[in-house]
Amino acid sequence: MKVIFDTDPGVDDAMALRFLTRRPEFELLAITTVHGNLDVDTVTRNALWLAGWMGLSVPVARGAEAPLCRDAGRGAPHVHGAGGLGDLTLPDPLDRTADPRPAWQVIVDLVRAYPHQVTLIAVGPLTNLALALRHDPAIAGLVAGVSLMGGAFGMHGHTGNMSPVAEANILSDPEAADQVMTAPWPVSILGLDVTQQVVMDAAYLDRLGAQGGADGAFLRGVSRFYQAFHERSRGLAGIFAHDSLAVIHAMAPHLFTLRHGPVRVVCGGLADGQTIQKPDGFPCPPTAAWDAFPARAVAVDVDVAGVLALYAGTFGVS
Amino acid sequence: MKVIFDTDPGVDDAMALRFLTRRPEFELLAITTVHGNLDVDTVTRNALWLAGWMGLSVPVARGAEAPLCRDAGRGAPHVHGAGGLGDLTLPDPLDRTADPRPAWQVIVDLVRAYPHQVTLIAVGPLTNLALALRHDPAIAGLVAGVSLMGGAFGMHGHTGNMSPVAEANILSDPEAADQVMTAPWPVSILGLDVTQQVVMDAAYLDRLGAQGGADGAFLRGVSRFYQAFHERSRGLAGIFAHDSLAVIHAMAPHLFTLRHGPVRVVCGGLADGQTIQKPDGFPCPPTAAWDAFPARAVAVDVDVAGVLALYAGTFGVS
Repeated sequence: MKVIFDTDPGVDDAMALRFLTRRPEFELLAITTVHGNLDVDTVTRNALWLAGWMGLSVPVARGAEAPLCRDAGRGAPHVHGAGGLGDLTLPDPLDRTADPRPAWQVIVDLVRAYPHQVTLIAVGPLTNLALALRHDPAIAGLVAGVSLMGGAFGMHGHTGNMSPVAEANILSDPEAADQVMTAPWPVSILGLDVTQQVVMDAAYLDRLGAQGGADGAFLRGVSRFYQAFHERSRGLAGIFAHDSLAVIHAMAPHLFTLRHGPVRVVCGGLADGQTIQKPDGFPCPPTAAWDAFPARAVAVDVDVAGVLALYAGTFGVS
Repeated sequence: MKVIFDTDPGVDDAMALRFLTRRPEFELLAITTVHGNLDVDTVTRNALWLAGWMGLSVPVARGAEAPLCRDAGRGAPHVHGAGGLGDLTLPDPLDRTADPRPAWQVIVDLVRAYPHQVTLIAVGPLTNLALALRHDPAIAGLVAGVSLMGGAFGMHGHTGNMSPVAEANILSDPEAADQVMTAPWPVSILGLDVTQQVVMDAAYLDRLGAQGGADGAFLRGVSRFYQAFHERSRGLAGIFAHDSLAVIHAMAPHLFTLRHGPVRVVCGGLADGQTIQKPDGFPCPPTAAWDAFPARAVAVDVDVAGVLALYAGTFGVS
């Protein structure tokens, strides 16, 4: 499966990328970066370093520095660390540089080069994907699929993490997210409904660190600061897996229960950034705001043990 | 408990009023009407007829004919029947007339007459309550409480019935609802989360009709059209209790599980009319849109058997 990884690393982004690049199911074509967890320069630097450390020979392209039509946010250094990768300090200078093309251009070029073969795995704000659609709307008919981490649909009480109803990736660019959700391409959405179910607890992370070799040591190291945030803010002795689920869903959809129906994103007002699905067959009067758009697959449940075993097993840890 | 019943009858309104006026716990001071299930003239006529049929000697006051700042809706004759009381046809002319005061004035007068003693039970759009607050904001500190049927908070998958997130009473006047939710008076909210759990099925309604005397015959008769709507739209061989729950909560709060936290109502956009609570302790960054307002009690669960037994038992039916 040819994939482009659109990302704002970010601790869970880095953990998802390490998983992705260790799985034989995937052929990574490019990494594209986007504002989000921190500013785009910082996360691009992180992506370049990660590509180098992982020995990847794919382009890393810098993406949007701000949402489509809002000011850039301030990022979340309290969640991901001042540099975005927890306590890690990167060498300076790096031995890699970014692709000269903007992220949206790389997405368009690769989708055009491999029609119907490329899956977009997007784990940050959806600005790059919306820009790619804007520059070349026909790519919607040429991608194999879009698997994204974002949003919250209220299942099991999982509503928002930035407001009572809004999740961070989507709230970081609601207008872009609404365009991505309504475009005529196949979209699967992994929101807090499932990502907050998959907790990698301290013992799990310690096992990764102790038994997972260099990869495991990296995963344990990069996640310590992130774990401290989860403990501080939620009393959770572990971390939510978040971004890894968009990768895992792309290769192992059987681990998820999906609900189908159009999805819209609220832009502005109290519910700004809320993702709202109208499930197929939902008993309310016809509402063109949803009915005019194609159904999306929203993950509403997850095989937690299956996901945790797949992730750890990829690093030889049981 | 002195109560004012603010209503847009409406089948479930009528069923709630019959229950209320048969319970010794309540002293009904007035019925106030509001646009909603049908236009305000029709529902006022229904309220006058109900008051006459029930032998009530309280004022019936006509209320708002439209939302605070929107055009009047078209009502729901497909749900409640063309006349609002299912298949019932009222005599013409009625032998009663409405109080000359507007509904908001009656609310203000009675709250002022009985400070700290009046509970407002509101089962329609919240326009009258918002107008009462506008004319005399101090009543917020003078009511004993507000118990209202409206909204949907996503518990157990109960989201909306007019859109994927909006319930009919609230969507009929979101601006009024937001004012009522944020005013400094004690508010309890019975939304679809609980009202859609309490299904009066056909056998239950038949028992009411067979064993409940004249009241039971009325309840069975008035609910047939409403039941047909539920069957048609949801395949439900019965009806949701809806409005009765606001009455039952006022006298039997132990039958409900409450969640506390400020509530706001979305005004405009895709989520128009959505009720959003920020539960106390919710793990998201501070959000003044909620944090500046007092906590409300939102019913998130209900003792279904207890409610059904209390309702039927009031009419001597077990």
